[in-house]
Amino acid sequence: MVDHRPADLVVTEVRLTPVLVADPPLLNTQGVHQPYTPRLIIEVVTAGGATGLGETYGDAEYLALARPLATALVGRKVTDLNALAALAAHVDGAAGTAGPDGVDAAGLRGVRTADKLRRSVRSGFEVACLDAWGHATGLPVHALLGGAVRDRVPYGAYLFYRWERHPDGLGEPDDWGAALDPAGIVAQARRFADRYGFTSFKLKGGVFPPDQEAAAIRALAAAFPGRPLRLDPNGAWSVPTALQVADALADVLTYLEDPVSGTGAMARVAAGTTIPLATNMCVTTFEELPEAIARDAVRIVLSDHHYWGGLHATRELAALCRTFGLGLAMHSNTHLGISLAAMTHVAATVPDLDHACDTHYPWQTEDVLTERLAFRDGHLDVGDAPGLGVTLDRDRLAVLHHRWLADDGTYRNRDDAAAMRRVHPDWTTPPVPRW
Amino acid sequence: MVDHRPADLVVTEVRLTPVLVADPPLLNTQGVHQPYTPRLIIEVVTAGGATGLGETYGDAEYLALARPLATALVGRKVTDLNALAALAAHVDGAAGTAGPDGVDAAGLRGVRTADKLRRSVRSGFEVACLDAWGHATGLPVHALLGGAVRDRVPYGAYLFYRWERHPDGLGEPDDWGAALDPAGIVAQARRFADRYGFTSFKLKGGVFPPDQEAAAIRALAAAFPGRPLRLDPNGAWSVPTALQVADALADVLTYLEDPVSGTGAMARVAAGTTIPLATNMCVTTFEELPEAIARDAVRIVLSDHHYWGGLHATRELAALCRTFGLGLAMHSNTHLGISLAAMTHVAATVPDLDHACDTHYPWQTEDVLTERLAFRDGHLDVGDAPGLGVTLDRDRLAVLHHRWLADDGTYRNRDDAAAMRRVHPDWTTPPVPRW
Repeated sequence: MVDHRPADLVVTEVRLTPVLVADPPLLNTQGVHQPYTPRLIIEVVTAGGATGLGETYGDAEYLALARPLATALVGRKVTDLNALAALAAHVDGAAGTAGPDGVDAAGLRGVRTADKLRRSVRSGFEVACLDAWGHATGLPVHALLGGAVRDRVPYGAYLFYRWERHPDGLGEPDDWGAALDPAGIVAQARRFADRYGFTSFKLKGGVFPPDQEAAAIRALAAAFPGRPLRLDPNGAWSVPTALQVADALADVLTYLEDPVSGTGAMARVAAGTTIPLATNMCVTTFEELPEAIARDAVRIVLSDHHYWGGLHATRELAALCRTFGLGLAMHSNTHLGISLAAMTHVAATVPDLDHACDTHYPWQTEDVLTERLAFRDGHLDVGDAPGLGVTLDRDRLAVLHHRWLADDGTYRNRDDAAAMRRVHPDWTTPPVPRW
Repeated sequence: MVDHRPADLVVTEVRLTPVLVADPPLLNTQGVHQPYTPRLIIEVVTAGGATGLGETYGDAEYLALARPLATALVGRKVTDLNALAALAAHVDGAAGTAGPDGVDAAGLRGVRTADKLRRSVRSGFEVACLDAWGHATGLPVHALLGGAVRDRVPYGAYLFYRWERHPDGLGEPDDWGAALDPAGIVAQARRFADRYGFTSFKLKGGVFPPDQEAAAIRALAAAFPGRPLRLDPNGAWSVPTALQVADALADVLTYLEDPVSGTGAMARVAAGTTIPLATNMCVTTFEELPEAIARDAVRIVLSDHHYWGGLHATRELAALCRTFGLGLAMHSNTHLGISLAAMTHVAATVPDLDHACDTHYPWQTEDVLTERLAFRDGHLDVGDAPGLGVTLDRDRLAVLHHRWLADDGTYRNRDDAAAMRRVHPDWTTPPVPRW
């Protein structure tokens, strides 16, 4: 039996390190990814000497909430996960940081509410606490969530229309090349399949007129017959357009993700097609679930553990989906290996994970870990290493933090429309429906 | 930092001890509690030497499932809680023990399904695993569920019509005396309030014609003005009767629990009264929630962690209730201190526990613990002792187990109608609606 020293689990220090991470010129309906995107790395240190890692969005509004929460966490135990919600609300109330509810500026993260912002921030702290707790007790994070029910988690290839490089020589180059038509998308998919063993493919759409994107899906279906295919135009289409595309692709799409914006429009599309609708925009909070369920607007919820408030909250979402017969899979925004490990641990504990998870990770040429997570046969192994099973590379962290420090503010808040204006000076966020 | 010896958490032995526990002659719509009621005590022993305690229903069908599950658990870790569901389904499939779905024989436990039976059994194993894990790491069970958000949990007085003693000199006597009319119920409530500090009161109804039970509620309201009052006829009433009682007691009842049987009838009552309806019969499984929510049949779910599949599942239920604006509190069936401790730990972790929890515990003169749990000011303290914070009294366990061994089968399955037939030989389970 291990020694009983729960006092060792008291948090003595929380370090917040905002970083800017290289991001390729991936296109979406809002614009294009900036050369660098902000993330926040959270380290929680315990009295017993364990350190836990967490990661979340790094935009200014997230940082503003994270700072008082980091201070408030000192003196609490890393097991006090349920108290994080009240703590985040308290420090937010004191600081008035969350701002008004409304539509998210980035436009791709669904509804914007003060509670969702707090959940996104506290998720990084929850993961860091779980990682520290795991290191302190020799247990993997999945064990702290009730244990893995699978030993590896499936991921899919996340295909993007993209430029070869950022304009004006900005950013860090990669060797993926451009992909701006069906042939380019198929080549990208083939490289994903060859390199990582991915066997399902999701195309980020909303970039070109729908018939061009449907043609890309058709090309994928021809190149990878029988493989799961998905298309996600980020709500850019009208209901008639969505129904038309759905009809055209009904034989090859596993699901259609957020073809239109809003629960009402999603429900109208759902009623008119046999293709299941998935979402990471229409439903990104618990508050939105009842109406979406009542109107049968979505069949699959793509969870982003940041939005939903962490790994325990993701398990609660899984229970909700199970109860109402909804499918569950995982969404991804640009992230590093810490969040990928967190996704993998929680996904390993959910019995009814219905589809391969999304991840941007292969697009990220940089990480803050000593060793990148490696996909094998399209999966990540879960493993039984303590905590998340990852190790921070302090030198890399310092480099990416110095980039953040040196930034004049251009990249500290993700703004895909601003990045697009470098090429198209008149670009503004397109109104929806765009097509 | 504690040593990393997760191998210590491997289960090396599981002991199952069925017991018969003295139960007073409490009346309900089915009949009367038997002099002894079956419970199952579960001990999970780890390689590191920690022992965890669990408790669940002890009827034969529960035992039949528990035995192969106990065997299957050896060699797994006490952290493998999410695997218990598949394990229980597997051993059940192999043994064919769960039997067909249908109406529960006891009639008070809601719908009967193979999955619910498996959940009820595995809940005792989950609690035992959590207790062992807690002892092994020095952490209280609530910490293993994400941490307490309150330091004490409110309980209410569970009032029963009752006889002074069991017929024919059977069973173990107590000093509560009979309660068969409003004055008797008020006297019982006063004793509960004086002895335990309870400030809310629930009357088990369905025993006498509704106007007599309404009169008892009126008498309670006069004796304890402003205190939360509840009435639970276990589904014995018709819709018109329920509406009539609800109308008569609208000014004093906090909620009305299962006035009628079935979701449709509950929905009709709910539509016709301002009193919130609570349930531990209409909704006792995740499968029943969607229809109950869609029809607005209940406002408060009273969770029995045995039915729902354990403490993690109770937290999932809490998330569902929170999402759909339903209240949550805790149901009780006859139980001992192990299950009371488990209820208290999980209740401590649920932020939105809306009402005092039910418990039969004060009615139980016997327990298997070295020290009974003690209510103070109507609450149980949560505490930070390792595991559940309770200690098994092996001598008491042996006594209650020997009673089970010596029983000729009369009490090994709870049957309140059979107990009633000792006094009323023609008694059969009354059809619903009874009034």
